[in-house]
Amino acid sequence: MARAQASLRVLGVDPGLTRCGVGVVDVARDRSAVLVHVGVIRSDPEMAIERRLAAIAAGLRDVLDEHRPDVVAVERVFAQQNRSTVMGTAQVSGVALLIAGERGLPAQTHTPTEVKAAITGYGSADKRQVQAMVARILRLDDLPKPADAADALALALCHAWRVGVGAAPASGAPLTPAQRAWHDAERLARR
Amino acid sequence: MARAQASLRVLGVDPGLTRCGVGVVDVARDRSAVLVHVGVIRSDPEMAIERRLAAIAAGLRDVLDEHRPDVVAVERVFAQQNRSTVMGTAQVSGVALLIAGERGLPAQTHTPTEVKAAITGYGSADKRQVQAMVARILRLDDLPKPADAADALALALCHAWRVGVGAAPASGAPLTPAQRAWHDAERLARR
Repeated sequence: MARAQASLRVLGVDPGLTRCGVGVVDVARDRSAVLVHVGVIRSDPEMAIERRLAAIAAGLRDVLDEHRPDVVAVERVFAQQNRSTVMGTAQVSGVALLIAGERGLPAQTHTPTEVKAAITGYGSADKRQVQAMVARILRLDDLPKPADAADALALALCHAWRVGVGAAPASGAPLTPAQRAWHDAERLARR
Repeated sequence: MARAQASLRVLGVDPGLTRCGVGVVDVARDRSAVLVHVGVIRSDPEMAIERRLAAIAAGLRDVLDEHRPDVVAVERVFAQQNRSTVMGTAQVSGVALLIAGERGLPAQTHTPTEVKAAITGYGSADKRQVQAMVARILRLDDLPKPADAADALALALCHAWRVGVGAAPASGAPLTPAQRAWHDAERLARR
């Protein structure tokens, strides 16, 4: 998809071993956003863990190759969450961050509460409310499904809005061309 | 280092974001073992998480390139462990498993208790006892240091002893040449 001028392209990743949500959006400085890609990368629960992680990594690399985001946002995983799957989720988040780092892309994590607050205005919104708001922001006719995919889009939007399209990433990584463009535009506007 | 005939070469990984221990051993069917490599891969705590994971991944790939293990053993991380670092540790474990999977190597996790029990005979052994036993098994003049490196060696030994040098890996992956050699030798011995 052709990239909107002077927008920030964000890949959001909702990490999961069985279903890993991915969403790519272009966000302009006026906070308007356009859907670029949404999907779910799956791995077979029957496969060995090292093969499952390799399958997810391959899927993530395909998304980066095709859509070339400026930055990657990954949901932050907490030890307190559902115990049976939390370690697999944490491992997938590590793989997503690794792949961003290996491409030289800045990456950042956001908590589910931060994402909900950014998208709906309150941190205890339910999944359905987040999905509905994501659909409205991106002017989609239907709710993005499955929930993992909607969460990935919400995360990408949250990142652009929280960090700011023109702001330098918190990681201290150099600005991407899109970020640099905004940075320059902002400096000019302040004169 | 030249590989001992008909032994299993195991890479043990003690995952950690600041210090990731790596140890490679050749284990023969009589359970005797030889040290091949031991070290610690570090990442700078000042760096962004995605860059730290990329640095550790590069270090792990270097070890695989240089020593070509048959199998990778990674310490299993639990959500209950020390909260401040557990997610980083889980992310590194995911990276280690991923890199094994991408090379087509079987990988397996073992708990700290399993490792201690395999090495010292009891699961509540302290770090010093494990280090001393690893030094004795590998006929080292000094204790392997730092503790992360000793843990990685203990993990590699534990894997070979628990899974069995001649046994097929639990992941269902095909046998390596070394494993195949043992498998064939065992079948002959049974006749």
